[in-house]
Amino acid sequence: MAPSRYVGYLAFFAASLLPSGILALWPVPTTLETGMSALKVSPSFYFDVQVEGAPADLYEAVGQAQCYLETDKLGRLVVGRGATDTTALASAKTLSCLKLSLTSGATAEPIASEAVKPLGTRSEEYALTIPADGSTATLTANSTLGLYRGLTTFNQFFYYYGGVTYTLLAPIAITDTPAYPYRGLGLDTSRNYYPVTDILRTLDAMSWVKINTFHWHITDSQSFPLEVARYPDLAMNGAYSSQEIYTESDIQYIVQYAGSRGIDVLLEIDTPGHTAIIGTSYPDYVACFDATPTPYEPPAGQLRFALPEVMDFTASLLVDVAKTLPSYYFSTGGDELHTDCYADDYPTQQQLNSTGTTLNDALNTFTQTTHGALISAGKTPVVWEEMVLDWNVTLSNETIVMVWISSEDALAVAERGFRIVQAPSNYFYLDCGAGEWLGADPTGNSWCDPFKTWSKAYTFDPLANLTEAQYKLVLGGEQILWSEQSGPQNLDPIVWPRAASSAEIFWSAKQPSGAALNVTEALPRLHDVRYRMVQRGLNPIPLQPHWCALRPHACDLYA
Amino acid sequence: MAPSRYVGYLAFFAASLLPSGILALWPVPTTLETGMSALKVSPSFYFDVQVEGAPADLYEAVGQAQCYLETDKLGRLVVGRGATDTTALASAKTLSCLKLSLTSGATAEPIASEAVKPLGTRSEEYALTIPADGSTATLTANSTLGLYRGLTTFNQFFYYYGGVTYTLLAPIAITDTPAYPYRGLGLDTSRNYYPVTDILRTLDAMSWVKINTFHWHITDSQSFPLEVARYPDLAMNGAYSSQEIYTESDIQYIVQYAGSRGIDVLLEIDTPGHTAIIGTSYPDYVACFDATPTPYEPPAGQLRFALPEVMDFTASLLVDVAKTLPSYYFSTGGDELHTDCYADDYPTQQQLNSTGTTLNDALNTFTQTTHGALISAGKTPVVWEEMVLDWNVTLSNETIVMVWISSEDALAVAERGFRIVQAPSNYFYLDCGAGEWLGADPTGNSWCDPFKTWSKAYTFDPLANLTEAQYKLVLGGEQILWSEQSGPQNLDPIVWPRAASSAEIFWSAKQPSGAALNVTEALPRLHDVRYRMVQRGLNPIPLQPHWCALRPHACDLYA
Repeated sequence: MAPSRYVGYLAFFAASLLPSGILALWPVPTTLETGMSALKVSPSFYFDVQVEGAPADLYEAVGQAQCYLETDKLGRLVVGRGATDTTALASAKTLSCLKLSLTSGATAEPIASEAVKPLGTRSEEYALTIPADGSTATLTANSTLGLYRGLTTFNQFFYYYGGVTYTLLAPIAITDTPAYPYRGLGLDTSRNYYPVTDILRTLDAMSWVKINTFHWHITDSQSFPLEVARYPDLAMNGAYSSQEIYTESDIQYIVQYAGSRGIDVLLEIDTPGHTAIIGTSYPDYVACFDATPTPYEPPAGQLRFALPEVMDFTASLLVDVAKTLPSYYFSTGGDELHTDCYADDYPTQQQLNSTGTTLNDALNTFTQTTHGALISAGKTPVVWEEMVLDWNVTLSNETIVMVWISSEDALAVAERGFRIVQAPSNYFYLDCGAGEWLGADPTGNSWCDPFKTWSKAYTFDPLANLTEAQYKLVLGGEQILWSEQSGPQNLDPIVWPRAASSAEIFWSAKQPSGAALNVTEALPRLHDVRYRMVQRGLNPIPLQPHWCALRPHACDLYA
Repeated sequence: MAPSRYVGYLAFFAASLLPSGILALWPVPTTLETGMSALKVSPSFYFDVQVEGAPADLYEAVGQAQCYLETDKLGRLVVGRGATDTTALASAKTLSCLKLSLTSGATAEPIASEAVKPLGTRSEEYALTIPADGSTATLTANSTLGLYRGLTTFNQFFYYYGGVTYTLLAPIAITDTPAYPYRGLGLDTSRNYYPVTDILRTLDAMSWVKINTFHWHITDSQSFPLEVARYPDLAMNGAYSSQEIYTESDIQYIVQYAGSRGIDVLLEIDTPGHTAIIGTSYPDYVACFDATPTPYEPPAGQLRFALPEVMDFTASLLVDVAKTLPSYYFSTGGDELHTDCYADDYPTQQQLNSTGTTLNDALNTFTQTTHGALISAGKTPVVWEEMVLDWNVTLSNETIVMVWISSEDALAVAERGFRIVQAPSNYFYLDCGAGEWLGADPTGNSWCDPFKTWSKAYTFDPLANLTEAQYKLVLGGEQILWSEQSGPQNLDPIVWPRAASSAEIFWSAKQPSGAALNVTEALPRLHDVRYRMVQRGLNPIPLQPHWCALRPHACDLYA
């Protein structure tokens, strides 16, 4: 049931003007030319890999693309699901081959190697042509990563009806390159644990919309599911159970799986706050473990960052984990530090008094120590905005700052000259709107109400409030799922297809026509993304009644 | 991430006072006595059915209870999940048998027959005793339906650790009877289609919390997935596809499956509004099918209820479907009728003018005709509140009225003397809070924001604003999932465990102590319900971090 709402005559009119083939690419490419010819995929279609020294993961990617081409079996989202296309298909030519090649001079490295190069140095662009006459389609790029992105686009063109896989848009010519180098998805695996298989499935879905960074908030105050060789107690005492630990081999498998799908894994070990669980193994390192009442999310407890031994332990922990990962980036967190915790903490006060330093000085030293160790290990630190805006700690210019509290905070970070990842809770937090999760609160609402719809997220402007000179500081952004009220049981429907919104904002930035992105144009394409995800075994939430999905714009709100 | 919130010292204190065995019954029984003795379930445990002429579905229920006892394998929700219980179990006695019997004079009918008797005449009460000394446990009731409820309670007592299934609460004595006869769950299968298997799984989950009515909103304006022998066109033209139809045998199977789990199926064919799709088969019967702009949820279109042939068709349709069902109840809907649709509808105006009647008179005649036919077929009509409060149509005194627009509306319905099912959107709508689903609305929110948490639903008072004399009119209530933004992909997590809230409100009404239900006491039990559902293969959403679930009240908001 729903209230009376006005649905527009214009919407019905618009629907009648749509081409017979709805363009369902997501994210939309930089430039695009399509025709109106039907083109069938040959039963003996093959990918011709003309890449000297092609790496194994390129062949895996081709095998996956072949699999999707054969098994997606997605009917077009129109009434009849393609029944009306049979006439056009009767006279259609047949496509037998897509030839993959690198531009001259380019060398073939594994996709997984290209995917973890420094931001700004990765080559994700590609060119794709699909002739209407049945002659060979071509995909060219400067790197295997570009070829991988092109394969993803290629798969999105094809529909299935009555045993035939086809497109109605031939001939097709695309050149495509991302607007922003960082396009992420964040997941918290500490509040609740997600089995490895759920993470792998999520990485697959991320790759379908060209998301290239998995921001893995792997630990927090509630559990420490990360196995660390030098500090086995952390997981032994901190994981929810021995079955709920990401072993070192799990991490390596996930990182390789992600890399071969063009995804870099940005691991986060949040410090010095959000660390209570470390106290179960190192009680001397954690303050106010049982503090109550407390301003923290339970359990309370934060690292005694002022203590030299805690600084050394933390630096060693972060480096030990970071050096096992191929990524250039590692997040040390830094959000929601509650300094009142240390006011009555004897070890901390004793240390401050004996050295005549302030808590903020100590935080600065802690950050220098931990970040210094990471930088020495060849890593670039990533932090949450408070480290810059609340504590003003001294950070390397290379440090990347994640904005989360509000989209309004990006300007202040930019004014400090730091590079930015946009993860504003008021647009991108996937967990908002589910109501208060703390107990004994009968009618409490979510702290970040309302629910952030795909369309709300889609209206985010990455450059809002910034000066042109500051634009270059925006690396991209990500939507995030915090897991106080989420787990494997609702992972797919709470993340998908919503997380595709930021994927398009940061890859496409605008429509091929040059027009700004807008939700009305995007919805039919997002339905297509969502229905293809269902065909591939994911469980994305329906955005509208199926009746609406089959009738583009018929359910648009009359503006 | 979350904002700073105060978590209470009192909460930690309370946690330390909890008994070693948390009472995890849901809904809580009428009277309850438990001890502090551990009791193991024998590997050769059996159910001794001492019921003369026991029906097949009672044996099925016993087989299912045996299966849950062996396969739930639920660890207690405490740190260690039961590791600390081994000492108590070392000296524990072993339970070998639960004897089921009917009270003297009671005759054994199939559960499915008992489940569909008229509201108020069903016998769901039971008495359960589980001695601590290993002697036979006993379950007695006046009906097989009561025995079924008792079996459901019996299963909730047992946990698993280290190969042992046990309870820590023996001896146990329970007498239990529901406070309200109607405890439902509503599902809309028209906006989006749910395969039969999803409905069966939902019926299982309903039975676990003693919900006894499946309110099936099977058709609406978007699709008509119901096969009707006399009107095959309705599904042929109105279903989303030939694979998305509930055939007559599907319906019979679902009804039998529900009945054997103590659940009555209340089918709803919403009329005269919410019927646009009927126009694809009977265009002459539907007005303003293409009306735009329109105040309706797309597609527009409502039955031309003023036309005699439409009255006859509708009466025939409703009766044809109703008579295939064992339930005494059938819903004709009646919500959100937009009378402006008929202002310019020639056939309707011609009919009104030629007979000198008003639209409201015609609606009255339509209702008399359709309800009269249902009553003649032995069915009691159920309608949405507008039929009484907006249109004041003449209804049989037996008619049951569903309140949905607001919990404030129950009083007005009660003042008219009708029996009430409480389904207020401001407490019980499971779909609220997901944002606007109509397109072209970048930042629109849900019409019924915010999201209705389990705790918000749990605070609903079924008798609020009513006089004592009106209390008897409240039959019970239900939570409902409307499917504009839901489908098989998110069915489990959006419904469960939230729908357990109304299940306890309407079965228990209060705690065994006589104290009012309250969310603080309920949360640890609801975690238990939710974790047991996970063990049984359902995908209920986590209510809190696992850390909180293992530490009752440790995550309560400081009040």
